[in-house]
Amino acid sequence: MFEKRIKDLRKKLLKEKLDGVLISSVASITYLTGYSNFFKEERDGYVFITSGGNYILTHSIYSKALKGKILNFEVIEISRRDPPEKILQNILKRETASIGIEEHDLRVYEYKRLNKAFKNLKNFELKVDRVIKNKHEIELISKACKVGDKVFEKVFKKIKLGMSEKQLVFEIESLIKKEDLDVSFRTIVAFGTNASAPHHLSGKTKLEMNQFIVMDFGVLFENYCSDMTRTVFFGNPSEKQKYIYNIVLESQKKAVEFLEKALKNKKSIKAADVDKTARDYIISKGYPSIPHSLGHGIGLEVHEGPHLSPKSKDILKEGMVFSIEPGIYLEGFGGVRIEDLFVLGKKGLKQITNSKKELIAV
Amino acid sequence: MFEKRIKDLRKKLLKEKLDGVLISSVASITYLTGYSNFFKEERDGYVFITSGGNYILTHSIYSKALKGKILNFEVIEISRRDPPEKILQNILKRETASIGIEEHDLRVYEYKRLNKAFKNLKNFELKVDRVIKNKHEIELISKACKVGDKVFEKVFKKIKLGMSEKQLVFEIESLIKKEDLDVSFRTIVAFGTNASAPHHLSGKTKLEMNQFIVMDFGVLFENYCSDMTRTVFFGNPSEKQKYIYNIVLESQKKAVEFLEKALKNKKSIKAADVDKTARDYIISKGYPSIPHSLGHGIGLEVHEGPHLSPKSKDILKEGMVFSIEPGIYLEGFGGVRIEDLFVLGKKGLKQITNSKKELIAV
Repeated sequence: MFEKRIKDLRKKLLKEKLDGVLISSVASITYLTGYSNFFKEERDGYVFITSGGNYILTHSIYSKALKGKILNFEVIEISRRDPPEKILQNILKRETASIGIEEHDLRVYEYKRLNKAFKNLKNFELKVDRVIKNKHEIELISKACKVGDKVFEKVFKKIKLGMSEKQLVFEIESLIKKEDLDVSFRTIVAFGTNASAPHHLSGKTKLEMNQFIVMDFGVLFENYCSDMTRTVFFGNPSEKQKYIYNIVLESQKKAVEFLEKALKNKKSIKAADVDKTARDYIISKGYPSIPHSLGHGIGLEVHEGPHLSPKSKDILKEGMVFSIEPGIYLEGFGGVRIEDLFVLGKKGLKQITNSKKELIAV
Repeated sequence: MFEKRIKDLRKKLLKEKLDGVLISSVASITYLTGYSNFFKEERDGYVFITSGGNYILTHSIYSKALKGKILNFEVIEISRRDPPEKILQNILKRETASIGIEEHDLRVYEYKRLNKAFKNLKNFELKVDRVIKNKHEIELISKACKVGDKVFEKVFKKIKLGMSEKQLVFEIESLIKKEDLDVSFRTIVAFGTNASAPHHLSGKTKLEMNQFIVMDFGVLFENYCSDMTRTVFFGNPSEKQKYIYNIVLESQKKAVEFLEKALKNKKSIKAADVDKTARDYIISKGYPSIPHSLGHGIGLEVHEGPHLSPKSKDILKEGMVFSIEPGIYLEGFGGVRIEDLFVLGKKGLKQITNSKKELIAV
């Protein structure tokens, strides 16, 4: 799998007339090598690919453990004396060489140092390749989703009057860790009016009667992410609360129906049109436009392409895995979001998160 | 506190002849506003400070929750139509304006967009200001350390023959979360020979008899980090194992003694000299030079200045908080690391992690 990916990268390298590509994002390094130990918050290493060689550049704290471990890769140690740009110079020999860089990931200080050694730096998008998943990747994401469903099924027993958002986060994350797995991102739990912020930071707010509970969480399965959101009700929902919930649910259904119809008609599917379908439905019911994209691709990163948003130029294609997650957020009232993951497969659209979606009153 | 920090930043802005400073790192945003909800893996927002105004630029999913919440800050919504560079243009009115950016954090794609709108972009280091901690910050880090000590005290009961590294990670993190707190970084647990890699990714390796266990973990207390490492022994350590452990322990002591002596003599303390003291001691005993820095500053980020490393130019000063963490790593044998945090205070050097350091046999 990794050999094929590197082979494909080399083809691109030739096509774009690059002498080498410097990969810095941890997700892309994992994509090319299977190695995922680097910390995302630091710059622990790079992958460098030329027409003739594969290199991992990393600090001494990793280099020993890595030597000989990654098939077909040579490990080169970064140090003060041998910074990345010098190592690249040693490999390429000439400063006229042109190098691809991940502009979405590389920091300005790295760029400036690199640019002193090489004049020709060009943006290189490995992210684009990662958007289309193979069978194995889809399996891993699906497995992550299954664990998410299992966790959701179990979490109800843990919901109690007076518990804090943070406690519920802890319960969700513990259930994931009991499966010997990690979370794919910081779990979001929002009670009541806090749910009017889509990315609420869970805190000490305590659960009261008759509140919405938004739970947005994901599982990491062999480096691949899941992501799902369910909104449940603690107590007895009023008519208005049920009404809002069902508009969100219906909005997701509209997006799915739009996709399925387009697939049936073998039409090219613009991601922006899927977004529009769900968005317009919510607006037509008199509620505010969704303050975020309808959905995002997922894989080695929780958020990657394709982008299902109003201005997206992405076309949805076979092998893509993405979320559909409409929401209504009202200040002082709260919020509702329903998020599922879908695969665009050979046989059509398949939902891979399968927790129930009728409004659950706990 | 935040008002003073912004006032200080404005002085720097004048001094460096900048018309504005764009702060992008989440730690620095937290430092200036107290707001820490932005995800580190995404670009959720920026802070922009001019001589006359304080702004938070963020996406719609945050902007509503933020409006009016951060004292003295105006919230401006980023959108496709209003990207950051356009918002800055609206504020500054002229493209000759010079803007400070965090080159260590800003991505190349952001830099290029910004650079199209403004020709004068200069590196700006707020990280430098963050290195000196005030009393309140030291209190928060110390509180995080205390929880770390408490967790370490409790974790022994959880260590069992045959448990996996990941299970021990889970036990440590659960103990932290039971205190209603978060971890400050991904917990590292390494059994036996795995400990020869300083940044081992904990996995399914099972604990066997007569192995070293390295535990490196931290607690987040009101946005401030702790960080500590203890190496314990499962079974009965051999003479060689005890010998190696004690060299590491002695190496840390040497560094502390060096610091205390320099403080007593009121000498300027070069961080590189502290590193050298501990490093040389290990080498003098015939073991390899530490494959990482002796220590690092800590605060809103786990790793920040000062840097206690061979090539560091940092001078250790009052108000700095940093780790001293020597280690010996031997392939096929394993590793030992002992890490504590220290404050350089008015009354001298104070250790703020206080778990015992004699070799513990579990």
